[in-house]
Amino acid sequence: MTSIALLLVGDELLDGRTADKNGAYFAGQLREHGVAVSRITTIGDPLAGIVATIGDLLQAVDFVVISGGIGPTADDRTREAVARFAGVDLVDDGVTWDEIVQRFEKLGRGAPSEANRVQALIPRGATRLPNPLGTAPGFVIKVGGKRVASVPGVPSEARRMFDDHVLPLLSTGSAIPQTTLLFAGVPESKLGHLLADEMVEREEVRVGITASWSVLAVTVRAADSALLESTCQRVRAIGAQWYVGAGARRIEQLLVERLRSDRLDLSLAESCTGGLVASRITGVPGASEVLQEAYVTYSNAAKQRLLAVPAEVLETHGAVSEACVLAMVRGLVDRSGAALAGVVSGIAGPGGGSADKPVGLVHFAIARSGVPEAWSRQYGDIGREEVRQRAATDLLVRLTRATSQAGR
Amino acid sequence: MTSIALLLVGDELLDGRTADKNGAYFAGQLREHGVAVSRITTIGDPLAGIVATIGDLLQAVDFVVISGGIGPTADDRTREAVARFAGVDLVDDGVTWDEIVQRFEKLGRGAPSEANRVQALIPRGATRLPNPLGTAPGFVIKVGGKRVASVPGVPSEARRMFDDHVLPLLSTGSAIPQTTLLFAGVPESKLGHLLADEMVEREEVRVGITASWSVLAVTVRAADSALLESTCQRVRAIGAQWYVGAGARRIEQLLVERLRSDRLDLSLAESCTGGLVASRITGVPGASEVLQEAYVTYSNAAKQRLLAVPAEVLETHGAVSEACVLAMVRGLVDRSGAALAGVVSGIAGPGGGSADKPVGLVHFAIARSGVPEAWSRQYGDIGREEVRQRAATDLLVRLTRATSQAGR
Repeated sequence: MTSIALLLVGDELLDGRTADKNGAYFAGQLREHGVAVSRITTIGDPLAGIVATIGDLLQAVDFVVISGGIGPTADDRTREAVARFAGVDLVDDGVTWDEIVQRFEKLGRGAPSEANRVQALIPRGATRLPNPLGTAPGFVIKVGGKRVASVPGVPSEARRMFDDHVLPLLSTGSAIPQTTLLFAGVPESKLGHLLADEMVEREEVRVGITASWSVLAVTVRAADSALLESTCQRVRAIGAQWYVGAGARRIEQLLVERLRSDRLDLSLAESCTGGLVASRITGVPGASEVLQEAYVTYSNAAKQRLLAVPAEVLETHGAVSEACVLAMVRGLVDRSGAALAGVVSGIAGPGGGSADKPVGLVHFAIARSGVPEAWSRQYGDIGREEVRQRAATDLLVRLTRATSQAGR
Repeated sequence: MTSIALLLVGDELLDGRTADKNGAYFAGQLREHGVAVSRITTIGDPLAGIVATIGDLLQAVDFVVISGGIGPTADDRTREAVARFAGVDLVDDGVTWDEIVQRFEKLGRGAPSEANRVQALIPRGATRLPNPLGTAPGFVIKVGGKRVASVPGVPSEARRMFDDHVLPLLSTGSAIPQTTLLFAGVPESKLGHLLADEMVEREEVRVGITASWSVLAVTVRAADSALLESTCQRVRAIGAQWYVGAGARRIEQLLVERLRSDRLDLSLAESCTGGLVASRITGVPGASEVLQEAYVTYSNAAKQRLLAVPAEVLETHGAVSEACVLAMVRGLVDRSGAALAGVVSGIAGPGGGSADKPVGLVHFAIARSGVPEAWSRQYGDIGREEVRQRAATDLLVRLTRATSQAGR
């Protein structure tokens, strides 16, 4: 089996400007095709570092995929680094430059600059990998019985090239059977302890837990589907009281799938999460079948006007209260007529907290067939984005549990 | 100056289940405090790999920060790996276990399980780093004149511990003066070519470009603020026609800041982006001062009912059309009374495209003081999330340009 390392190149990955998106994507695609990544290394732009790291990695693995450093600017040095490592020069294959010219024309960007000309070069002896979404082609080259592939750093270009041209070189052809089961409402330590026997490392079956805010995704991989099925049954039985559902990696995917199969429509009204719940749901293909509309009612005025929350509720209890979310969800059902409705109102911080209602306090309500139910959570002062994501996740979990196949 | 490597530990980072969030955060914090990260390495859970990698990294750097592998489950091996590398045993400091017990009580989780007991252990001779957001403490230990720190993998816990306890050990005390200038509407290759003289690598000033969808963030770092100011002025002059503004790293931060200083309020109506624009804006602290309300009008019925889009517009032109976004923005201004309004309607895919209106076609409109303006973009079939993010970014740019300080 081919052993693989990923090498991510770019100063912007080492100084906090950019969080890498390619490593996890490539690794996930490889895993689904039965190939494990043994290491991901991130380094800066300098040429010498790229050359040395390719060498280090090829001591341990058979195939290095490099992402980044093939743009048109002076700080893009991957092409040169691979050529130097392989001991060859850079050549223009006579095709790529014409493609770049055509691509610029098609996009109405006029003629490419001389700066783009370096993008037409690849190491001598390398096979060119087309880039339908950008100007820089990738390439793959054999060096001493091992291989190095270069793809762009821009995620959309990198993914397309990786899927179309790199994955086919590496795939073993047989995907490892796997299922993800989602649980919520239990600490990772507790579920991990309960699943300890299942999680012992074995050749033929692997069980792993990943926490995404309040959702625990338990991934089961097994050598064959019978073993997968029996392991999943045991895992589900052990975590039965917290089990949400299976077949999706993310709670919003599971929710959309369940709503579609139930033929339920959903509407939302968000205050502190400000569109995050709607955005996570509409990020799932097919969401348009289940979500008709959603509201971001950030101000008190919007809560009154759009959801008919009574002024006295806001005056007496405030916007972050059980009374307010119950009024919001009633108003939302009235306006939207949706079979399932969810609302959230809280204090994400950093400002806006008080002794009575500290940062991190979030109230929620849902209504199924018009019957409302409210609850609240105190996340603590853990940072604005963290409060928003946790609150969004908890609402998504509760909405999923309100579908007919919850826990099945 | 201390040289630093980051080591991210976890099988879930190598198989696509989780995209790392800590590496970029730590690197960004360090950079702001004048410290450069030379390498980020991601490896799996096995003990031997962690031990060996710590050794490899400490050959090249003085300080390794390890994130992950200190949870309570059997696959958490960082504690043991560091102890083994340092040649010491693991000890219970007599304080941590009591804290874990108290934390469980406070969170209403009852008594911790025996599985949590390993979390009270740290390598002998290490200094414990408190974890106010979770059960596992971190630690830092000296080994042969160099140092190794261990922090959690869970991002909220990791960030708090890193900021409070690791950063103070590493900071040089003087932050490097830096400014970020945002540009839009120009390819990275073109701006990079124009800025080539500024981007030549020098000791005293560094200029780098990072693309986030259609926004190019040019970061200028200089040895002193006079040099920073003069460099920024040249960069702005060179890219004047595409310049959006300075002082924020992300376009949504710049938009919120400009709206606040203009005392303009904003409303949104989103179709294909489904709340993403609102979510990006409300992710910025202080957004509540400028955003009162937003609508996700995903269905035609919602566009008619919430924004009064005429049925004949939808029948004649369809939901993805200039006529529709103009009707949407008029309806939005009528309903919200906002000084600035933005709407978007498009086909994010993967389904829903036609020969006439292919996947990736997006129509936009904004209205400033009620005066509407519409435009469209064809992004191509580049993936649902990519179309959504690019469309959201383009709307954010156009809204920012509509503020009074655009280009200043």
